[in-house]
Amino acid sequence: MLLRLRDPLNPADLDAVCSACEGLGFRARVLTVGERSVQLLEVEGDGDAARLKSVLEDYLAVAGVVDDAGARELVLKAGADSETVVRVGDAVFGGGHAALIGGPCSVQDADSLLEIARAVRAAGATLLRGGAHKPRSSPYAFQGLGADALRLLGDVSAEVGLPVVTEIMEPSDIDGMLDVCAMFQVGSRNMANAPLLRELGKAGKPVLLKRGMAATAREFLLAAEYVLAEGNERVVLCERGIRGFDNATRNVLDVGTVAYLKRTTHLPVIVDPSHAAGRADLVRPLARAGIAVGADGLLVEVHPRPLEARSDARQALGLDAFADVASDMRLLIELDGRHFSQPSSQKTPTP
Amino acid sequence: MLLRLRDPLNPADLDAVCSACEGLGFRARVLTVGERSVQLLEVEGDGDAARLKSVLEDYLAVAGVVDDAGARELVLKAGADSETVVRVGDAVFGGGHAALIGGPCSVQDADSLLEIARAVRAAGATLLRGGAHKPRSSPYAFQGLGADALRLLGDVSAEVGLPVVTEIMEPSDIDGMLDVCAMFQVGSRNMANAPLLRELGKAGKPVLLKRGMAATAREFLLAAEYVLAEGNERVVLCERGIRGFDNATRNVLDVGTVAYLKRTTHLPVIVDPSHAAGRADLVRPLARAGIAVGADGLLVEVHPRPLEARSDARQALGLDAFADVASDMRLLIELDGRHFSQPSSQKTPTP
Amino acid sequence: MLLRLRDPLNPADLDAVCSACEGLGFRARVLTVGERSVQLLEVEGDGDAARLKSVLEDYLAVAGVVDDAGARELVLKAGADSETVVRVGDAVFGGGHAALIGGPCSVQDADSLLEIARAVRAAGATLLRGGAHKPRSSPYAFQGLGADALRLLGDVSAEVGLPVVTEIMEPSDIDGMLDVCAMFQVGSRNMANAPLLRELGKAGKPVLLKRGMAATAREFLLAAEYVLAEGNERVVLCERGIRGFDNATRNVLDVGTVAYLKRTTHLPVIVDPSHAAGRADLVRPLARAGIAVGADGLLVEVHPRPLEARSDARQALGLDAFADVASDMRLLIELDGRHFSQPSSQKTPTP
Amino acid sequence: MLLRLRDPLNPADLDAVCSACEGLGFRARVLTVGERSVQLLEVEGDGDAARLKSVLEDYLAVAGVVDDAGARELVLKAGADSETVVRVGDAVFGGGHAALIGGPCSVQDADSLLEIARAVRAAGATLLRGGAHKPRSSPYAFQGLGADALRLLGDVSAEVGLPVVTEIMEPSDIDGMLDVCAMFQVGSRNMANAPLLRELGKAGKPVLLKRGMAATAREFLLAAEYVLAEGNERVVLCERGIRGFDNATRNVLDVGTVAYLKRTTHLPVIVDPSHAAGRADLVRPLARAGIAVGADGLLVEVHPRPLEARSDARQALGLDAFADVASDMRLLIELDGRHFSQPSSQKTPTP
Repeated sequence: MLLRLRDPLNPADLDAVCSACEGLGFRARVLTVGERSVQLLEVEGDGDAARLKSVLEDYLAVAGVVDDAGARELVLKAGADSETVVRVGDAVFGGGHAALIGGPCSVQDADSLLEIARAVRAAGATLLRGGAHKPRSSPYAFQGLGADALRLLGDVSAEVGLPVVTEIMEPSDIDGMLDVCAMFQVGSRNMANAPLLRELGKAGKPVLLKRGMAATAREFLLAAEYVLAEGNERVVLCERGIRGFDNATRNVLDVGTVAYLKRTTHLPVIVDPSHAAGRADLVRPLARAGIAVGADGLLVEVHPRPLEARSDARQALGLDAFADVASDMRLLIELDGRHFSQPSSQKTPTP
Repeated sequence: MLLRLRDPLNPADLDAVCSACEGLGFRARVLTVGERSVQLLEVEGDGDAARLKSVLEDYLAVAGVVDDAGARELVLKAGADSETVVRVGDAVFGGGHAALIGGPCSVQDADSLLEIARAVRAAGATLLRGGAHKPRSSPYAFQGLGADALRLLGDVSAEVGLPVVTEIMEPSDIDGMLDVCAMFQVGSRNMANAPLLRELGKAGKPVLLKRGMAATAREFLLAAEYVLAEGNERVVLCERGIRGFDNATRNVLDVGTVAYLKRTTHLPVIVDPSHAAGRADLVRPLARAGIAVGADGLLVEVHPRPLEARSDARQALGLDAFADVASDMRLLIELDGRHFSQPSSQKTPTP
Repeated sequence: MLLRLRDPLNPADLDAVCSACEGLGFRARVLTVGERSVQLLEVEGDGDAARLKSVLEDYLAVAGVVDDAGARELVLKAGADSETVVRVGDAVFGGGHAALIGGPCSVQDADSLLEIARAVRAAGATLLRGGAHKPRSSPYAFQGLGADALRLLGDVSAEVGLPVVTEIMEPSDIDGMLDVCAMFQVGSRNMANAPLLRELGKAGKPVLLKRGMAATAREFLLAAEYVLAEGNERVVLCERGIRGFDNATRNVLDVGTVAYLKRTTHLPVIVDPSHAAGRADLVRPLARAGIAVGADGLLVEVHPRPLEARSDARQALGLDAFADVASDMRLLIELDGRHFSQPSSQKTPTP
Repeated sequence: MLLRLRDPLNPADLDAVCSACEGLGFRARVLTVGERSVQLLEVEGDGDAARLKSVLEDYLAVAGVVDDAGARELVLKAGADSETVVRVGDAVFGGGHAALIGGPCSVQDADSLLEIARAVRAAGATLLRGGAHKPRSSPYAFQGLGADALRLLGDVSAEVGLPVVTEIMEPSDIDGMLDVCAMFQVGSRNMANAPLLRELGKAGKPVLLKRGMAATAREFLLAAEYVLAEGNERVVLCERGIRGFDNATRNVLDVGTVAYLKRTTHLPVIVDPSHAAGRADLVRPLARAGIAVGADGLLVEVHPRPLEARSDARQALGLDAFADVASDMRLLIELDGRHFSQPSSQKTPTP
């Protein structure tokens, strides 16, 4: 690793940096290059280079990293083709596979949930989403049915044969959700919630990690790194729109970052066109853009009668519109020679 | 039109608003509604409602527009299917047609321009782009060859049979460019340059209008309105990425706004994946996303040997990579049942 | 309250909205106004109007709020002069009082913490900040000393006589921190962590709530509303810079929102110039701007030898520079006829 | 200068870079450093280093600048104390002097303009602003009185003894405005209008350059560099708020960038709190923040009866409120030991 040192630099500061290197199992030596005598620090060794880089960037004496010698966090690709495949029931994400997740923003009652689950499965969804605890901006807005919603999700999952992905907001909720939940969703507001990410790393179940509203690609990847660092590699990243300066759409679907992530990380990347659009009539084109740019799946909100939805009604697709999205997705995935995950012919309750 | 009046409101302020309405051929009357006596202003008449709305929004006494009664600028759709088709040589934008524009960021020499023009035509491009005057952030960066570049563009256009689109930066340049230029490009930095837009409205030639780096969809549409208000409806809008908070990509390709614009305006909308990506390896996926979301064309930068490009080298596609983009585009356009504009078999120099 | 109804609207949707109103203790009736027959819904009653408004905004049948009849969340001012005063030891925030908080980004060892605490108290700080659990972007960066840091903070607080404010990241940590912590800080990453905010509302101790990196003023206020809704009004808001598109400063100190909040909420508002600047040489001017715009206090990071700081070293002020900030602050506060909180002459261990 | 070369790199690409260096009067040689053999390019010589750096950054073969050896554009400070003082009549900007500019957004009629000019002069303004050509988002909004406004500005300037600053939108307008206009304002929409900036550089009159809505500090400085590169150093930079994601204020006043610019450039920097706030009640606190952070002046919109203003009525201060801003500004400037520019006792028509 080659670092540019701050100029001027006093010997004590340099010592502090060198000690930090040694503490992590590296040797450091100063190189003086060029006629103007620019000082670089070369660091070599067999330690954990990603950790070293992260630690060194905190030191004021280090002005910049010239060459990182391939220091590589766990989320980054080892080679151009390295891809992690995450399987949840019939849903397969990554490695040339893409899956569709559908369901209501929040679970409201048994009948509508069952109706939705059957419809999204028929359209080609292999996972059922549904909010039990809804994080809302206002404490007075509908916050979800909580434990009742979890019970409904469990019943409907068993009945229809679709594993469940639902949002988790606190580490202390993990245990109570393990039975019902085949995949834990971490919402945008919690992307940087380190204690939650660490516990999900330990829990070992697949994680659907949504990008924070103003998170850079690197911050997004480092949030996933918290999960991987605990030994859980089953993480699916989800781009759901970043905060923008306009209100033509609710958020700005950042397809460029999807493309960037696909080249950078081996983890699967999916797109949530519903939160990006914030209005039902733009969900379908954004879903198409997400698949065309290379996403490994979609997460789409659906409600049989959007006018009755208790949250995010403006962006919920009706059941027919959802089927159109599924059909577009299948077409585009197959055009690429990729595989669209199908619900198996038999009901397959998740373990 | 129904307006909410400011509360409290003094009679003189109300008079000023009513006079403004009458001056534009409308009658205004105050409605007092509800138990709390909220005051609304109803405005009726046969005048230019878009102008009225624009004028009224400037008055402090008007707190908001409750119902605009369909006041509609020229750029807005009259009905769901209204679409303006813009033709430039063989290139057709809108109404189910999409066209591909290719060429170098800036024109450097006759040989490379000819090589590029032949290659992009062979790949399926129907318009040749090429910068003569380059607006650069730094006064010391390469600013384009100017008049020499225009001459080269004219020669190559005639030789290869591809009409030229190139950037215009000042009203006083219009006349000198009319011969060579089949379509005038207005760059992001000039999106809100009202004198330039008005003169292009008068000139009557097709205009390729790029979205400003931080322009809202409405500001973008109003910029086009300057051209249409002068009687020129041949405007193609171009989304090229908005300024974001990250540097994973140079700009954030705002596909949501493309989808929004396609539902809002009858003008064609194309996408520039090169400036959005800012790096060659992400141009192709962004081009795909742009077409899949519904864009009526692409504007792509190309250079036979990107390492030699004098500007924007990082984002230029090589000739083979351009052919891949063209092939993806054709496939996606045809999948939609849309028409991909083809260069006619004979050379067709633009008039 | 006066709402604009969606057009067209079917009777069932209208019924759903009216039922929701009745469920919250309101009566609703439709008003048809103007020649074009625009439909408005008037809602009257003695229920909780803020809750009603929040619920109604979720319904798709409601196109907008024309007049909210003063529906008012708990965080909003009742009158122009309503100001909540939050006292923590000698520190007084709001109501014409301003206080200075100083301390290290993260607690590293007993000696430097004691040195810092003495110096910031001598300069005029009335609260000691210090991170025990540090939320970092990378799992490999220094995460704070945890329980050891809490113990050191408790010891130094008692020794020097400065109450402690430190960051809390999980509801389950509250109990263990009650002894040491006189004020709980909620960091930017957790601004929208509803479970944490609710528990802090119940705990009753003063809360220092930092604005999320891309939170609107309204979202920031609604986050505070979660705490107030549980009965705890002792909340101090802290603007610490929002995410911007440039890297001249680490974040963009949004003084306009400070001015806006001071007119909107009765809660005190302070400024953190350290995280906004991200570099020590810009902290002092930003501190001055924060006080001049009307903030009720400052939160400033300090380290006796910034080169040794384990986190955020680039933005830590040395002890002399901190004294300069304190002196500027005192001058500006007194120029306004406001009161600068002083550490009392005797040591005042926190209760 | 020390550059990091791209890896891998072929000899032809390296030759192209070396030739570019030689063409600008520099020698280049490759240094191979460290055990991993990282390749750096050292460039030495007496040429124009700022131009060299700008040119080299365009080459794809250059991966980054490790050390720029102090390559310095004309706008940058030579030393910590270097400050350019710009004088326009009695107004002095920079070098410890600050001046206040006041006037209407757009000139509407002789009487109100005279009333405003007298009032702002009495309050302490030394320059009169007033729009003749107004760049508006909509072509239907009031666009200013044009030549009539210029005539009125000339008359009132002579009558009251305040030089005029007004916006210029096209190079071809310069000549016709030279008589009336003591200082040319370049609006946000035109910050990157290179032809306009170059002509203003040649015209030699003082320039008030407003920051573009989404311009980085570096882009802002490079826009000024276009003027300085033509030999005109009399440029005053104006921060007027950047585009943000919220609408609590119209724009986000970026005081951090003001502080950054004051440390980076020798040019004076002023603040426009009116466009930043977008609402009259927040102008005064933002004006205070601007001066406290170190700005060398203020540009404030004023109207005797804001309800009658034809543009930007929401942000215009009444005459009394303007006097309050002036009084705050004077106090804060004098607190710093700086000089507040006073209108001289006699009328001083601009030269």
